[in-house]
Amino acid sequence: MPAEGSAFAQLHQHLHQTRLLGSISSALYYDQNTVMPAAGAAWRGEQLALLAGQLHERQSNAAYTELVAAAEAELDAEASPEQRRNLQLLRLELERQRCLDPALVSALAKAQSRGNAIWQDARARNDFSAFAPALQELIALRRQQASQLAAAEPVPRSPWEILAQPFEPDISKTRLEELFTPLKAELPVLLEQVRATSTPQPAAIDLPEALQEQLCSELLDSWGYDPARCQRSRSAHPFSCTVGPQDYRITTRVVPGQPLSAFLATAHEWGHSLYEQGLPRTDDHYFPWPLGEATSMGVHESQSLFWECRVARSRAFAERWHPRFCSALGSDPWAGAFGFWRALNPLRPGLIRVEADELSYCLHIVLRFELELALMEQDMPVEDLPHQWNQRMGELLGIQPQTDSEGCLQDIHWAEGLMGYFPSYALGHLISAQISETFEIENGSIQALISAGDEIKLQAWLGKTVWPLGRSVNAEELVEKVSGCPLSAQPFLTYLAAKVDQRAG
Amino acid sequence: MPAEGSAFAQLHQHLHQTRLLGSISSALYYDQNTVMPAAGAAWRGEQLALLAGQLHERQSNAAYTELVAAAEAELDAEASPEQRRNLQLLRLELERQRCLDPALVSALAKAQSRGNAIWQDARARNDFSAFAPALQELIALRRQQASQLAAAEPVPRSPWEILAQPFEPDISKTRLEELFTPLKAELPVLLEQVRATSTPQPAAIDLPEALQEQLCSELLDSWGYDPARCQRSRSAHPFSCTVGPQDYRITTRVVPGQPLSAFLATAHEWGHSLYEQGLPRTDDHYFPWPLGEATSMGVHESQSLFWECRVARSRAFAERWHPRFCSALGSDPWAGAFGFWRALNPLRPGLIRVEADELSYCLHIVLRFELELALMEQDMPVEDLPHQWNQRMGELLGIQPQTDSEGCLQDIHWAEGLMGYFPSYALGHLISAQISETFEIENGSIQALISAGDEIKLQAWLGKTVWPLGRSVNAEELVEKVSGCPLSAQPFLTYLAAKVDQRAG
Repeated sequence: MPAEGSAFAQLHQHLHQTRLLGSISSALYYDQNTVMPAAGAAWRGEQLALLAGQLHERQSNAAYTELVAAAEAELDAEASPEQRRNLQLLRLELERQRCLDPALVSALAKAQSRGNAIWQDARARNDFSAFAPALQELIALRRQQASQLAAAEPVPRSPWEILAQPFEPDISKTRLEELFTPLKAELPVLLEQVRATSTPQPAAIDLPEALQEQLCSELLDSWGYDPARCQRSRSAHPFSCTVGPQDYRITTRVVPGQPLSAFLATAHEWGHSLYEQGLPRTDDHYFPWPLGEATSMGVHESQSLFWECRVARSRAFAERWHPRFCSALGSDPWAGAFGFWRALNPLRPGLIRVEADELSYCLHIVLRFELELALMEQDMPVEDLPHQWNQRMGELLGIQPQTDSEGCLQDIHWAEGLMGYFPSYALGHLISAQISETFEIENGSIQALISAGDEIKLQAWLGKTVWPLGRSVNAEELVEKVSGCPLSAQPFLTYLAAKVDQRAG
Repeated sequence: MPAEGSAFAQLHQHLHQTRLLGSISSALYYDQNTVMPAAGAAWRGEQLALLAGQLHERQSNAAYTELVAAAEAELDAEASPEQRRNLQLLRLELERQRCLDPALVSALAKAQSRGNAIWQDARARNDFSAFAPALQELIALRRQQASQLAAAEPVPRSPWEILAQPFEPDISKTRLEELFTPLKAELPVLLEQVRATSTPQPAAIDLPEALQEQLCSELLDSWGYDPARCQRSRSAHPFSCTVGPQDYRITTRVVPGQPLSAFLATAHEWGHSLYEQGLPRTDDHYFPWPLGEATSMGVHESQSLFWECRVARSRAFAERWHPRFCSALGSDPWAGAFGFWRALNPLRPGLIRVEADELSYCLHIVLRFELELALMEQDMPVEDLPHQWNQRMGELLGIQPQTDSEGCLQDIHWAEGLMGYFPSYALGHLISAQISETFEIENGSIQALISAGDEIKLQAWLGKTVWPLGRSVNAEELVEKVSGCPLSAQPFLTYLAAKVDQRAG
């Protein structure tokens, strides 16, 4: 805790209040997506806009700007590295805020809201041409934003790179191309291997909602879910959200005919929540400061994917839970634990990213990354998007959509101008794999641990090595710190190759 | 809508934002009492305190004070009575805020919070002496508050009357004494009559939670519950709360062994919610203004009691729902509809106010009203409270508590210094009865209407005569406007006498 009356102490108080306001928004968001009646949406929008205005004001007003400068002036030889890092991160964000023309911020907010509405309609009617002008405008505005933000960047960055910074600090196109090249080369080979040994799709299985709820509860109980600090609800789309330093929420949904969907989504969201719960916040010095925050979307995703894919989709986990699912159902539609494990791993390329398996998921991301670069930096006309999408989809995944709704209109991201976001999803897979490899080198097989029902040891290790780092390092530094090696696609590809082999039976 | 740019229009905008902030608090309160994990309480307290601070600031700062004055200056011969009334109510609240010494406000907030904590403990240990000093301090602070507020009162009022104003505008001790005197005279006679014909208490009935939920849903469906604007959840204590102009929430709880508790609580809370839903808010001019608010706690309670007691505890309602409860249970533990109706009306005096029936409830209130006056205005020493409580309880209800926990320590109100609140509960019964009498004079028997399953006509009538009045009238004016007569205890006593007669079979 900084000395009372110091600029640091005042800044702490300021950030504390900012965090309070932000967490009120989170609570409203949770309410909105779990219980709010539909007609409450307009008023909720006004409530959230009011809070967003207050937040923006607090993060850019003169009092705050002066506090940051005064705290910087207080830094002396005795200042801790953590103090320096906190101030450095606050300064960077402040400079970014100050570079932006408020007129552009407002124009972007309107274009995003309009883009979303037009996209909803265009997707429903499979009419890309209706969406194209809105996308064109969003690209133009985001390019303008990147050009304004360039002045605040500590190193020279391309427009796309600048827009990606809030999601993945310090990311560069060069690094992404290095990481994605082996994926583009090897994933299609693995996909081909699976295709050669594929089995017919199993019939839909109907597992009653109450039983799915029960299985999700059992899963969470075995993974340290503490009802005194956590809450699980239902929502249309699963998500995880932190409402306070002792208040963690996750949601799931039950999909008819898909008995494993809620279970795997619970594992995924709980992974996000565990990371949040493990961020440094016991010390008052950290919670409202940048060091108490998640470092990147990629790292966040690595934690959810770890629990979903490395653990819940693993062979050992399938062996342990197969009897429980059979007893819940009163039968065994999977004809044994191996069939259950295959059902947990439907390796089958499809058109839709959010339904993709571990093998094809990253190819969906590569497609979007390359198209974003083409649109943002290589003057590809917006009109070419459907054609380019379909052609590259065929090259990467061997399938092509029949409609744009199943193609370049499927994601919400571009409809809201969120260029720069997609690669984090793929980085999550790579980071999870590399961290897992390190765990096994240090502690032995994850599978053996799962067979013994000892997943809590995985949590203990992540809680020691990964979660407490907060924003002291960026994603790549985190991986290097934990594994001793630079981030690479190899651990992920090795893991997938083994899964494909094993799957052939 | 007032002319753009006018002080009225600016004031409207100010009040709109104030309402947004207030409704964010409501949403957090709902979340806190339905899903928030226990460990989230401290952070939630900070969030609510932040909002409370912002609200207080908005309601008392110089900008607002000037806006109110400017709007008053705009009033001319063409100003509508509604405009005048809105400003009059805003002015009164503003003057009350301005009379209060901030040091006292802060001291009271601390004493209330401390009082609550000490009371929780004292009640658990049945130790009134531990609570007495806290109560003494709260009484002293509230007396001080009343003395500061006296300057803002438009007419001379006693300290207790001043403290009761926020709950029951314009209420006086004289009126309450006039209204309560017949209750004190006649309710004990009716109670004696029931005692003479009492039957043994029925065995506890276990109706599974899922079935109780189902019955509550069916009740609400038949009473116009619209899931697009309403949400029902579970909480430890049932309540109703409005989160936005199109967002109404109610909660219920299932009490083991009490198959009718959740059902009746649902009727009660839905009554509160219907009133809120019916307040004038279609016209933009009203929603954030005082005229769009509930006029008093007594009127609010009259609406919940109407649906709980006049409708759901009625003979006709019992006849209609008895088969449904029997089919849910698979048996008829009430031995017929008459027994079911008696179970809905357990007329049996008890020690605890919140469990009291229609016959004894108001006597619990009279007891508290008289003791509050003694404590606040007649120098009764706090130490005398247990003795006085027990003695008067014996006189009014013919029973005496064995412990203070079941006696003068049972309610939370005094622990938080909420003197002046209790009478509104009794007024709710009287108002409900008088309004019901008027309905029957104009439209015929409520019982006949319920038998026909036509409760929606009751709603239509209340929605025309009661709900749209907002704060254009106080509680007594509302009753006189609707019934043509001053508020009186007679309709309530007549209704109860008939119920007691009918109950004898």
